[in-house]
Amino acid sequence: MLRSLKKLTLAGLLCLPLAASAQNQDSLHIRKIYDLALTQGQSYEQLRYLTSRIGARLSGSPQAAAAVEWARQEMDKMGLDRVYLQEVMVPHWVRGDKEYAAIVNSKITPTREVNVLALGGSVATPANGLTAEVVEVQSIDELKKLGKKKVQGKIVFFNRPFDQTHIITGHAYRGAVDQRSSGPSEAGKLGAVAVVVRSMASNTDDFPHTGGLRYADGAPRIPAVAISTKGADVLSKLLKEDDKLQFHLRMNPQWLPDVLSYNVIGEIKGSEKPDEIIVVGGHLDSWDIGEGAHDDGTGCVQSMEVLRLMRSMGYKPKRTIRAVMFMNEENGLRGGTKYAEVAKKQGEKHIAAIESDAGGFTPRGFGIATTTEATFQKALSWKDLLAPYGLHDIDRNGGGADIGPLKDDRVALIGFRPDSQRYFDIHHTANDTFDKVNRRELELGGASMAALVYLIDKYGL
Amino acid sequence: MLRSLKKLTLAGLLCLPLAASAQNQDSLHIRKIYDLALTQGQSYEQLRYLTSRIGARLSGSPQAAAAVEWARQEMDKMGLDRVYLQEVMVPHWVRGDKEYAAIVNSKITPTREVNVLALGGSVATPANGLTAEVVEVQSIDELKKLGKKKVQGKIVFFNRPFDQTHIITGHAYRGAVDQRSSGPSEAGKLGAVAVVVRSMASNTDDFPHTGGLRYADGAPRIPAVAISTKGADVLSKLLKEDDKLQFHLRMNPQWLPDVLSYNVIGEIKGSEKPDEIIVVGGHLDSWDIGEGAHDDGTGCVQSMEVLRLMRSMGYKPKRTIRAVMFMNEENGLRGGTKYAEVAKKQGEKHIAAIESDAGGFTPRGFGIATTTEATFQKALSWKDLLAPYGLHDIDRNGGGADIGPLKDDRVALIGFRPDSQRYFDIHHTANDTFDKVNRRELELGGASMAALVYLIDKYGL
Ligand SMILES: [Zn+2]
Ligand SMILES: [Zn+2]
Repeated sequence: MLRSLKKLTLAGLLCLPLAASAQNQDSLHIRKIYDLALTQGQSYEQLRYLTSRIGARLSGSPQAAAAVEWARQEMDKMGLDRVYLQEVMVPHWVRGDKEYAAIVNSKITPTREVNVLALGGSVATPANGLTAEVVEVQSIDELKKLGKKKVQGKIVFFNRPFDQTHIITGHAYRGAVDQRSSGPSEAGKLGAVAVVVRSMASNTDDFPHTGGLRYADGAPRIPAVAISTKGADVLSKLLKEDDKLQFHLRMNPQWLPDVLSYNVIGEIKGSEKPDEIIVVGGHLDSWDIGEGAHDDGTGCVQSMEVLRLMRSMGYKPKRTIRAVMFMNEENGLRGGTKYAEVAKKQGEKHIAAIESDAGGFTPRGFGIATTTEATFQKALSWKDLLAPYGLHDIDRNGGGADIGPLKDDRVALIGFRPDSQRYFDIHHTANDTFDKVNRRELELGGASMAALVYLIDKYGL
Repeated sequence: MLRSLKKLTLAGLLCLPLAASAQNQDSLHIRKIYDLALTQGQSYEQLRYLTSRIGARLSGSPQAAAAVEWARQEMDKMGLDRVYLQEVMVPHWVRGDKEYAAIVNSKITPTREVNVLALGGSVATPANGLTAEVVEVQSIDELKKLGKKKVQGKIVFFNRPFDQTHIITGHAYRGAVDQRSSGPSEAGKLGAVAVVVRSMASNTDDFPHTGGLRYADGAPRIPAVAISTKGADVLSKLLKEDDKLQFHLRMNPQWLPDVLSYNVIGEIKGSEKPDEIIVVGGHLDSWDIGEGAHDDGTGCVQSMEVLRLMRSMGYKPKRTIRAVMFMNEENGLRGGTKYAEVAKKQGEKHIAAIESDAGGFTPRGFGIATTTEATFQKALSWKDLLAPYGLHDIDRNGGGADIGPLKDDRVALIGFRPDSQRYFDIHHTANDTFDKVNRRELELGGASMAALVYLIDKYGL
């Protein structure tokens, strides 16, 4: 006691602000979070199970149910104050077993199979498939300029590549993804019979990247597939030499009735302000190929790790901390929507929600979306505490799909920002598997989220 | 002319410092460097050739000779002012064909093979191998405390793991590597018959990591191998249950006569200050396993890319820019030593040397070693120009093995600093292969070096 008083007085004499000793305490606490995560972190082994033993887990699938039960059991082991399932009805789309595509009837090449994946939500082709000429466009604008005459009866091939000059690959993704989400309906409106979309990918390989499409109300629903980047390059090249070649597409995906599923929630109750809630989350569902490792198994295990680290440090948060594993981010966002709905109905006060859904790569920072400048400035004031861990990118481009529906004036929506260079090589592909995840990168991510949660819990936001 | 005068006056009226427009010009120039590297970069395809077609290339090997010829031809294509080979005699150590190790004569397990790799430079075992009890230590200090009595006739097993709490894995490497470099001689002095070293690795797997050892003058030279981290864990566990178990080791590496080899140098002559030289470099040799992809194929292709980008932008540097592919970093440093020797003899004035030898991962910054504070401050003043590319870590921990011998008061020795999380999973293993390299990460690294070279060339350092 005497000693700390002395310290305080000395600090006063030296004109050091009181904040300095708090900062030092914070710095030590954060250091301990990282030490624990790097030496005793559990995320990597948890992720191994989720990806290798359960695997791909599209909403409505048996594997999604297994993932729910797994997440519940994992959090049950952690001695939290509360672990519960939140009911949510989810869409149930299945790929079918007949996905096949080929370049046919070309003067310059024999029938040539190409790798495609139905876009999530796509309708089927006729049972024997469909065959049509192909019209290649770089954009929806270009498509509209072609008009009905040139599109009617054809397969529209959207082939605008990633803009590689973006340093953050997510920006390139956003610049290309309208082809996949809106392309099918825009083509349908002009009488096209199907859509082939160049994969939203940062690399060139044989893996097609699936992802959701959005059929517009009233527009004809036509089948749509993603083609691998290599396949797209081949098709484009052949079209230049022979614009009468045809494309054959056969697939039988279908929509089944909605299925009861769950968000999985674990909670440590706040000791001083239990009514103020801080959420960390990722989504538990994935596409139906690969293992949903970086998208978004990593976000789930990192979110659980935040609670586990608190527990193993014996830290009692002032506010209530929740890890939420959202269901159905990929093709419906029903989990995120339901979570926000319930929160609103119960009058819950969320002060911050952090989502990890950009891969389990080396942490680079956080995007913080808030309507309150003071909130952003408070987060910025923690820069020196986060910089030693490589968390330099603190900016306003925050948010996340699942936490989006929580948006109101009181909550900061925060996106965990890992290094982006590798994500869109494997995003939504059969290649998004456990072996692409590095243990240290993954654990550093969980620790980074835990550090931010610690600061928000201690100082508010 | 009128227009630019007008602009200048306006700037003057608005009290903008003249520097602002230079900064803007720099920012545009750097942006263009990245655009070019990301869209038309050649490093990745060059690296594919070097790693997949030439492969591992230990000094003195035929593959090292192939790498020299390849690098010369690649730079010849670029239309540089000068491409030349600098002669250097290099050591020639070969691994032999009989590497074998097993845990034997244990009461609790049948003979159990383990994965080992001779340390570079190790002497051979007797032709039939050697078999001895094992004494496990965590450090050279602990070994010395055991003393001759407990070490004599035994195999010393250095098993201190990486300290995972370091955020930069290179720090953990430095904290463990004395076991490999000095361990064999220290054990030899106490009468040990061989040394087994836990791999200097950030992960746990079956790949042993080789690397150089340094036999001390006058100390007995005993055979030494690296054991994989999994193997080390097994051995340590078994020793706890049965400290009389024995280890069998058989290998026949040997030293052959020195071989004539070369540093490969490409140069663009400076237009204003041709006598001031800026070096970018990596090392062309690798260990004799894997493909030497991240160590250090990436550094070589990135260095060439710096010159190529200048050429393709039509940029004429004021100072002379040299890309140097150093020979024999791994087991002798003869190339780096020779380069500095010749530079000194010819009275060359190097103002900066940048080495990329920490993997082709996402760029994080530069370490800048200089004896002149003003030099460091000048580099720091470029922070805002580099930050948009994720280059936040500008500190004083600079340098690199090959450029080290250039050290004097006039030259800044700069280490390119990529993200470190994955490097020591694969460093010096059979797993350091092309498929571990991501195209965008690699090209971003070359662009980052090119951006720094541009600034140093323009403003001096
Ligand atoms: Zn996702
Ligand atoms: Zn190296």
